[in-house]
Amino acid sequence: MNGAECLLRTLLVNDVDLCLMNPGTSEMQFVSALDRVPAMRGVLGLFEGVCSGAADGYARMTGKPASVLLHLGPGLGYALSNLHNAKKARSPVVNIVGEHSTQHLAYDAPLSADIEAFARPVSAWVHTLREAGQMGMSAAAAVEAAWPGNVSTLIVPADYSWSEAGEPGAHRQRPARALPAPDVILQIAEVLRKGGKLSILLNGQAQHERGLRAAHRLRALTGVRIFAARYGARLSRGGNVPAVERIPYFPEPAQALLSELERMILVEAKPPVSFFGYPNLRSTLAPPGCIFDVLAEESQDGTAALEWLCDELGAPRVDVQAAQPGGVPTGSEPLTAAAIGRTVAALAPEGAVFSDEAVSSSEQLWPHLAYARQHDHLPNTGGSIGQGLPVALGAALACPDRKVISFEGDGSAMYTFQALWTMARESLDVTVIIMANRRYRILDVEMTRTGSGPVGNQAERMIDLKNPLLQWVDLARGLGVPATQAATVEEFVAAFAQAMHEPGPKLIEALL
Amino acid sequence: MNGAECLLRTLLVNDVDLCLMNPGTSEMQFVSALDRVPAMRGVLGLFEGVCSGAADGYARMTGKPASVLLHLGPGLGYALSNLHNAKKARSPVVNIVGEHSTQHLAYDAPLSADIEAFARPVSAWVHTLREAGQMGMSAAAAVEAAWPGNVSTLIVPADYSWSEAGEPGAHRQRPARALPAPDVILQIAEVLRKGGKLSILLNGQAQHERGLRAAHRLRALTGVRIFAARYGARLSRGGNVPAVERIPYFPEPAQALLSELERMILVEAKPPVSFFGYPNLRSTLAPPGCIFDVLAEESQDGTAALEWLCDELGAPRVDVQAAQPGGVPTGSEPLTAAAIGRTVAALAPEGAVFSDEAVSSSEQLWPHLAYARQHDHLPNTGGSIGQGLPVALGAALACPDRKVISFEGDGSAMYTFQALWTMARESLDVTVIIMANRRYRILDVEMTRTGSGPVGNQAERMIDLKNPLLQWVDLARGLGVPATQAATVEEFVAAFAQAMHEPGPKLIEALL
Repeated sequence: MNGAECLLRTLLVNDVDLCLMNPGTSEMQFVSALDRVPAMRGVLGLFEGVCSGAADGYARMTGKPASVLLHLGPGLGYALSNLHNAKKARSPVVNIVGEHSTQHLAYDAPLSADIEAFARPVSAWVHTLREAGQMGMSAAAAVEAAWPGNVSTLIVPADYSWSEAGEPGAHRQRPARALPAPDVILQIAEVLRKGGKLSILLNGQAQHERGLRAAHRLRALTGVRIFAARYGARLSRGGNVPAVERIPYFPEPAQALLSELERMILVEAKPPVSFFGYPNLRSTLAPPGCIFDVLAEESQDGTAALEWLCDELGAPRVDVQAAQPGGVPTGSEPLTAAAIGRTVAALAPEGAVFSDEAVSSSEQLWPHLAYARQHDHLPNTGGSIGQGLPVALGAALACPDRKVISFEGDGSAMYTFQALWTMARESLDVTVIIMANRRYRILDVEMTRTGSGPVGNQAERMIDLKNPLLQWVDLARGLGVPATQAATVEEFVAAFAQAMHEPGPKLIEALL
Repeated sequence: MNGAECLLRTLLVNDVDLCLMNPGTSEMQFVSALDRVPAMRGVLGLFEGVCSGAADGYARMTGKPASVLLHLGPGLGYALSNLHNAKKARSPVVNIVGEHSTQHLAYDAPLSADIEAFARPVSAWVHTLREAGQMGMSAAAAVEAAWPGNVSTLIVPADYSWSEAGEPGAHRQRPARALPAPDVILQIAEVLRKGGKLSILLNGQAQHERGLRAAHRLRALTGVRIFAARYGARLSRGGNVPAVERIPYFPEPAQALLSELERMILVEAKPPVSFFGYPNLRSTLAPPGCIFDVLAEESQDGTAALEWLCDELGAPRVDVQAAQPGGVPTGSEPLTAAAIGRTVAALAPEGAVFSDEAVSSSEQLWPHLAYARQHDHLPNTGGSIGQGLPVALGAALACPDRKVISFEGDGSAMYTFQALWTMARESLDVTVIIMANRRYRILDVEMTRTGSGPVGNQAERMIDLKNPLLQWVDLARGLGVPATQAATVEEFVAAFAQAMHEPGPKLIEALL
């Protein structure tokens, strides 16, 4: 078989069965091979950042990589920002990039570029295929390199995809994540037994339901506080999932929240730092002198480590009372992010997935979403805006039976808006809520915080989004997604309730 | 003054007075400084690729750099694709990228990334500012590094923009481009005197009006053929500008066109190569054995070299008969790219600027546009799709008195569609024509050419854009641009005629 078919079959053998693509000439053999390898699902994105972000969302929900297929260096360029975000989420992604055929590499053609250099800042593994016969082995190695939570990039010259490549690469055994050494468990058990102002900081897979339940048993036994890293890939929440404290965005409230801590037990987490550095503020969030105990490194199995710790301490299983959603807000109150949060909490079904890129509205949404039925919360992990819609798309591809709700700012939604088209094409069950404040609102705050002074007339034109108004209903319809505008709480509740009862993509523009 | 103001003032002193930006927290001081440095025009883009592509378009029309202001590594990531295109266009661009404040660099914050590594593949010059006091000198160096036709990237930690930075950097003298040595002129004059199957290949600024007129004098005297490099940044055309032959996209017709040549005189050009490599085809386009004579290197002044050659040979000035536009097509014929080309040729005003990213429709447009009044033709230079709309935006910022016409495929327009919003915000005189064939049509051709076989059912879903239909009128309105759909020649002619008579942005979706 040719190289393209060999690559797709090797991916399949290694349980990678989704390929998000924006192909060009050098990738035509892969497109053609889809018809000979029907178990590989090809999904088209109209922009590369949609593909890379969707692979991130898919990995967060399945724990396994999707593949991305991109067109040479510049195609990879457009995908980099969401690959950066995927790297920060520790999402496994197998990134396939087509290259000119080898006889063409000697020339400075328009698309010639140093693809490896494009790939390196976001990839833990980069390899350019050196002969067609190595396709199977290299594709398997790419999957293996992605498993620990990495972007792996395999660059494939076009002639190696159209040449004979032999048999697909072998199935590789995905290794279980390591446990910490027993003495680590014993030492931290001792810390918890001694007591004091103790905390656990969860990140990675330890933020999923099982990890939260184990941490909660420790809390019930010892009174240790439990924090969730703010930029963790996926946090289980709502229903009877034990509630945890999230570290705030700005350093002052974060430092205040953590100010009394003597020790922090890190579970797949690193000591917390602020998002940005500011004049005359330290970037670390735990108080000076706080001792960090590493229960599990980022690459280790923090959930199993927590359960082991429970066993060591004899922490009993505990029932958790399910949070009770309140009613929906009534028509007499203004349409705010808080009102939207309460509506979603009341109406989102069990098992929903929330993709949260609401930026300045996110802090107001957050407390209300705690009262929703059990769900997964997927934040922006790497700070690069444009992650939210593609992550929602990827989550919907991963979980066709779950409702996906995508919270977006009107500023943030513009970066990778093309994701809506793929949601429509694939009939995905995503409800997009545009929190339309018609500004880069977060920048108003940051202007002050960075000491940049009041917003003058010229500065205003870099922050304001009112001239012209973004018409979200038109934009969504233009991409095939039914949309409605809500100017009041009543309109929002009605639109959201309808979206929860109908499958398929919807967009609601909420005028804040 | 603080570092941000120092940087803006240094840019101004060096004749850089436009800043295309998509700022974030680390760039707030620059946004704030716009109010203290009103001669610097700030223009907001809703996506970074819009800013970098607009800087390219601006440079092509003015010959001088604009600045781009981006937010950390991932913000730069989204700009890379059009910076690749700008690099291939040899457009000078001063690329300013904000970085975390230095005290924050020790931490692995969400947005932390190796910005220099992101920048290097597209930049001839990369520098991270090491202290605030070097801002003026470094900003001036960045402009100087851009002048020869480069992307120069200056990375500015946030604290250096809010700290005292001293006086702006000095004005630097932009050097004139070098002439070739006299013996080069004499040798090539001798080649032309001896005759044979000779040609001149123009690229760079030698494709502007003056270069074309000089080349034409040589043609009138010696019969030498004149070719334009296909991916040159800007070609003067139409009216009484001497017509030249453009090298076709696919290698077979290109090789056929050039097959009889014995020598090619390169003027700011390199030996021509095909866009992609294909099975069993060579990538070079001139016939084997063709001798290349370098009249001017890419960095040299090819126009002056051509004029010197004219003087050396005593080539007289020649009048050129202006091309006569035909009438507009009539209602009885189908709406095709050719009919659109004839309409534009008939109705586009003197001095129009054409941004051409029509991809599969471009070959059909091309011969008809020759009959338009004098205009500049700006093609995609680096092969990365998503260049056309931002280049049109930048050209309109550069030339507010000229009509800009942007030819886009419906596939290609989706990559950086956000450019429309900035066109509306800045009331720019751009008419966008979407050549809506509802496919990645070029890929149909490339499937066959790369030996990938017929388009199967799965492959079809990676090429077809009909499900759902992109509704361009809705999309444009969503971004504040008036739009209309033309299904017939009559509708297109009416819509285009109206657009030519009204200032401001318009979009016409032409159903092919």
